[in-house]
Amino acid sequence: MTMEHPKAAAAVPATRTPAIREDGPQLERILRPRGIAVVGASQEPTKRGYQVVRALQNRGYEGNIQPVNPSGGVLLGLPVAPSVEAASGPVDLAVICTPAPTVPELIRACGRRGLAGAVVLAAGFRELGERGAALEAALTAAARESGVRVIGPNTSGILNLPLGLDLIGVPGTRPGRLALLAQSGNAALALLNDAVDRPGEGFSFVVGLGNESDLRFHEYLAFLGGAPEVGAVMVHAESFRDGEAFLRVARDVAPHLPVVVLKGGRTRAGDRAARSHTGAVASDHLVVRSALRQAGAVEVTRSDDLLPVARMLAGQPAARRGRGLAILADGGGQGTLAADTLEEAGVPLAELGEGTRTRLRELLGPNAALGNPVDFAGAADRDPSVFPQALELILADPEVAGVVVVGLFGGYAIRFAAELEGAEWTAAGELAGVARDAGKPLVVHSIYAESGSRAIRELVEAGVPVLRSVETACRAAAASWERGRHLEVLAGRGPASRGAGDVAPGAAAAPEPDPLEPARQEGRPALLETESRALLERWGVPLVTARFCTTGEEAVQALAELGGEVVVKAVSGTVLHKTEAGGVVVGCATPEAVESAYGSVRRGVEEWAGERGLDPDVRGVLVARRLPSPTVELLVGVRRDASFGHVLTVGAGGTAVEVLKDVAVRVLPVEPAEIREMLDELRIAPLLRGHRGRPPVDLEGLVRLIANLASAACAVPELEELELNPVFASPDSVVAVDARGYRSTAPEVAAG
Amino acid sequence: MTMEHPKAAAAVPATRTPAIREDGPQLERILRPRGIAVVGASQEPTKRGYQVVRALQNRGYEGNIQPVNPSGGVLLGLPVAPSVEAASGPVDLAVICTPAPTVPELIRACGRRGLAGAVVLAAGFRELGERGAALEAALTAAARESGVRVIGPNTSGILNLPLGLDLIGVPGTRPGRLALLAQSGNAALALLNDAVDRPGEGFSFVVGLGNESDLRFHEYLAFLGGAPEVGAVMVHAESFRDGEAFLRVARDVAPHLPVVVLKGGRTRAGDRAARSHTGAVASDHLVVRSALRQAGAVEVTRSDDLLPVARMLAGQPAARRGRGLAILADGGGQGTLAADTLEEAGVPLAELGEGTRTRLRELLGPNAALGNPVDFAGAADRDPSVFPQALELILADPEVAGVVVVGLFGGYAIRFAAELEGAEWTAAGELAGVARDAGKPLVVHSIYAESGSRAIRELVEAGVPVLRSVETACRAAAASWERGRHLEVLAGRGPASRGAGDVAPGAAAAPEPDPLEPARQEGRPALLETESRALLERWGVPLVTARFCTTGEEAVQALAELGGEVVVKAVSGTVLHKTEAGGVVVGCATPEAVESAYGSVRRGVEEWAGERGLDPDVRGVLVARRLPSPTVELLVGVRRDASFGHVLTVGAGGTAVEVLKDVAVRVLPVEPAEIREMLDELRIAPLLRGHRGRPPVDLEGLVRLIANLASAACAVPELEELELNPVFASPDSVVAVDARGYRSTAPEVAAG
Repeated sequence: MTMEHPKAAAAVPATRTPAIREDGPQLERILRPRGIAVVGASQEPTKRGYQVVRALQNRGYEGNIQPVNPSGGVLLGLPVAPSVEAASGPVDLAVICTPAPTVPELIRACGRRGLAGAVVLAAGFRELGERGAALEAALTAAARESGVRVIGPNTSGILNLPLGLDLIGVPGTRPGRLALLAQSGNAALALLNDAVDRPGEGFSFVVGLGNESDLRFHEYLAFLGGAPEVGAVMVHAESFRDGEAFLRVARDVAPHLPVVVLKGGRTRAGDRAARSHTGAVASDHLVVRSALRQAGAVEVTRSDDLLPVARMLAGQPAARRGRGLAILADGGGQGTLAADTLEEAGVPLAELGEGTRTRLRELLGPNAALGNPVDFAGAADRDPSVFPQALELILADPEVAGVVVVGLFGGYAIRFAAELEGAEWTAAGELAGVARDAGKPLVVHSIYAESGSRAIRELVEAGVPVLRSVETACRAAAASWERGRHLEVLAGRGPASRGAGDVAPGAAAAPEPDPLEPARQEGRPALLETESRALLERWGVPLVTARFCTTGEEAVQALAELGGEVVVKAVSGTVLHKTEAGGVVVGCATPEAVESAYGSVRRGVEEWAGERGLDPDVRGVLVARRLPSPTVELLVGVRRDASFGHVLTVGAGGTAVEVLKDVAVRVLPVEPAEIREMLDELRIAPLLRGHRGRPPVDLEGLVRLIANLASAACAVPELEELELNPVFASPDSVVAVDARGYRSTAPEVAAG
Repeated sequence: MTMEHPKAAAAVPATRTPAIREDGPQLERILRPRGIAVVGASQEPTKRGYQVVRALQNRGYEGNIQPVNPSGGVLLGLPVAPSVEAASGPVDLAVICTPAPTVPELIRACGRRGLAGAVVLAAGFRELGERGAALEAALTAAARESGVRVIGPNTSGILNLPLGLDLIGVPGTRPGRLALLAQSGNAALALLNDAVDRPGEGFSFVVGLGNESDLRFHEYLAFLGGAPEVGAVMVHAESFRDGEAFLRVARDVAPHLPVVVLKGGRTRAGDRAARSHTGAVASDHLVVRSALRQAGAVEVTRSDDLLPVARMLAGQPAARRGRGLAILADGGGQGTLAADTLEEAGVPLAELGEGTRTRLRELLGPNAALGNPVDFAGAADRDPSVFPQALELILADPEVAGVVVVGLFGGYAIRFAAELEGAEWTAAGELAGVARDAGKPLVVHSIYAESGSRAIRELVEAGVPVLRSVETACRAAAASWERGRHLEVLAGRGPASRGAGDVAPGAAAAPEPDPLEPARQEGRPALLETESRALLERWGVPLVTARFCTTGEEAVQALAELGGEVVVKAVSGTVLHKTEAGGVVVGCATPEAVESAYGSVRRGVEEWAGERGLDPDVRGVLVARRLPSPTVELLVGVRRDASFGHVLTVGAGGTAVEVLKDVAVRVLPVEPAEIREMLDELRIAPLLRGHRGRPPVDLEGLVRLIANLASAACAVPELEELELNPVFASPDSVVAVDARGYRSTAPEVAAG
């Protein structure tokens, strides 16, 4: 274990993007403290206040260790200060080992001594419900007043292994380039234990976030983004208390530092009532998943993928060049399983060029299979040097972005003949070297991954992940592929092109008269369809032609103006799902029909509302031109997500939206390229592109409509939801047929 | 390791279903041989012919070991016979270690000596393409002629560990109740290695199937179904050379013996050309998956799930009673991940009863979370006996079908205090006992699963799987749940109710005149729509009313008879996708329109076929009543699968079938209950049941239509494909609007 002086370690190499520092210097002091006050230090070996001091000494923490206890004395050879204020020597961080009720006052004491932060180990706060919430509020208040930043409470501790600072205490934890931010203590413990038992990269920083009452995920992530000893960041989160900030920081960090996220609570239903289709069809986790991907983070959904994926991304370059991955197997069965796993993960398999195949045939002889997987069929059994030779040929193929080696490598000396050990060891070094020289990622699956063989150790020391599970190895490879795609997109995009301004092509400059003003005046959350339409028109969203009418005569007049058939819809300030309420009549072609419909849609909504004890609040009717059936009906909506702000949803529309559940989601702002990507993700994408010889819909018009709705949401923070369903998309037109909007009545949003 | 005499081990307990024996007695001799001839025995330690003899001696094989080599002499203390025929003592099985070209003649020699079977280790057969295929044909012929059954060729070997017969040679393999049938040698090797390193049940039988040229999966499975020392069977297969037989045997075996299948090659495109939607939307693997589930096998899609799931099903009862599983966690984070994993796997979480919660509160104190997961929140940290106490309360709840324990159990002495070791060990035994007494399954996730702690060993010895990955533990629990559902369905169904006869409600007895006869006479694979309709009518499938017409006048007459609007469709013996070919005109309401349509659909098909160099073969037109839009359009089809025979596909229909890909699949025969299950699996199921206040479609009529189509397929083996798309389903009617059929022209099928 190499010890670095904190100051030296803090130097950021010139190649790094300038570190994002949100409260950076203070976190610098907290996570690389010159000295630590252990508050509640104890002579009792079973107590945390003893164990922490002991652990700091055992791990070789080089800074100043200052035990604090009112009774004073000496602990493990160190003089005990009677209070934090009385601590001697440089002290940046407190570790508070005392029970929850004592904490707020101790935080204030830390402030008086000029400490930067405090680790609060005690549980007994917000996680206990109301009883603990008050105490947590007191703690947060103390932190704000004193300027001391708090890690936790209810944290499992922190770790800066290069510095010898280990409050978690998993024996055997090795220093290395991984960092971990974990909400759950047990999840961190599991991961650290796995890292000890399974060969690979070790740790620099670990932070247990606990209740995340003061210091948040994004602040730690910003710090790690500027820490040169970190090669990949793992995140275990159950919720993001400030999701927008996390995404912002992740977006800045991810291009130069891989971020891997495991989100717990994926299936937990949110507490938000789903008022619209947009809310009902896009699950909370779909939003999180989309947001993370937009920010360039890699999501894993298995806890046992977190460590292998992070080790892959820390040790190997992203799979950038080439059209797919290749599999190199020394047996058919597992090669096939690897191909299944990659394809199911959406990773393309490269097609090897003719030249590559010719050269491989020369190397491997007549029995080898030269598709993808390449299967040695025994060609390496007596000569492991065939592995690096084959790898070199495959990686030289421009179609190939990276390789997964599958099978027995690293165990040839164990399985076949002990005298192969030396050759296998040499081959391992060559494998790693060939991949490094090619600048392409390599991951090895081996039945013998945990055998401790020399060949395996050689690979691992060279930063090549070696995994015992075919599926986990492929997951690691898929992560490298995914990161490669993200970096390619960023490279194509250029750093300056992000932002809401890019997606406001139809924005009008002057916001007067404000279409939301009447609703604001009335304290009404639901917008009249006429109000939604006015807002959309201003932002250049094409709408079906319609007239607002408050008498039967006006409605008949509207029919004359619009011609053809019309749809008559009630306009209400409370009932926005008009069809269910009998508030819509379709296909009126005569004045009589319109006159009758005028009455019936009003009555329909009134009765429907009456039965439910609601004020029907009917303001009139909309008479809209009836359009011919489109090629595709879509849903396009924006809504505010509690964690991530405005979210855009695009999907299959019409009445069966919740049945089809065919949607794509992005956190705003988005660029037109991302909107096209969303459309491509839909199952109905082939219908948009022209299915079975039919012409495609006006895709550019559709992208423009979606971009303009997104711009409206970005520009009007007060907008809580605005859903267009259906949007009729045809080869020659794209038009919103119906619109439903809500404004926020929360004071802070409405004001903003 | 206990050695059992082969004869004694063969006794089947009375509680077992009578063993299914396809060639059973001969396999009995092969897999429990009284003596083994090692053909190609060698004095050279690096040769298989030496290693096999050595391995048999080392493992303590108690039968007769007879080395065979023309040069004779003595090998490892055993006299070498110059030929198989000259072998002395009882010999049931040969292990052939010589190169491929020698094998056919050696098989014949085995026959002359009266051997039951031969293990052929050599590669160099079918897997090399044409060169090897001829040799494999020679081998198969020799097997048939001699009556010697062949394992392999290209097999990784076999293992009967209770007997000391081990041709695979993974050091440390423990005897136990698992059996493995593996197509891939490396997959078997990986699994055996994992089993050595990860605590749990050991092995009785392993068979490497290799090329499966003679003995097939279903034959081994039938043998294992009658082997009392087997508690669960694992299968790794890339293809089933006789899929129908495998399903038949699996269906018989699975009710009393868990069968777990990993299918490699899931994403590999079949070589079958997709002629119909039915073929295009139901992937080959969807068919395999559905077939396995129907047979009661549990499918896993990760190779690293195969062993844990089999150990779970061998060691614990299926989760039968109760409405869902419960999670018992000693930390929130991992409990949440377990809940995510179970929910994503479609396993419901039980809702604990009020009484259970009250008792848990008394036991666990105020801080515990009593939802599902139940989270101890530290209540067990100093007293592991809380685990079995809580488990007993939870398993007593009738809502709970089984429990996943998640967290640190088994590592309390390691993590918290060494003096907890004894209490933890006691608690482990109690946990296993509580579950056993409740008759409900238990699986334990532990960070310390591989620590070798006394508590972990205690659990494992009691048959409780202990897994290091939360996700794998949940997969094991989900498998127990899945098996429970299958056994419940079987219990409800009664053993006698399966079979094609149950699903032929509309079958007519007399098959004359045969609607397929004209196509047969003409050697024509595609059926005219009129022929498909005639077949469907006979089987009671409701069809839209239509008239076949060969002149314009007849077509006009048909309009008069049918009334309203009609659809005019060309009837061709070659062009079955009429719409694309311009062979359909919809909505003809006048004689003029019908007359014009008559000409245009014929011309359309003729031109379309002409452009493609096809014979248009137009026989006339169908004039069909035009129906109003239905509530739901469905696709219902049958087709023959190369492995599994006739397969039924039900899904969302219409023109966007391949876009929606919303289908359910079953291998025939099916019962009406299974058809209802298929409809429930569709994403469009809510539309069928009545979405948003609309009335449901005539579900019973729909089930009848599907059952009748299925019956037709079961009764007419010659039917290659028959697809109804769309089927119009509405509240008051279910009717097939269009039908496309193909007959098989393969001689063996056409004759049958």
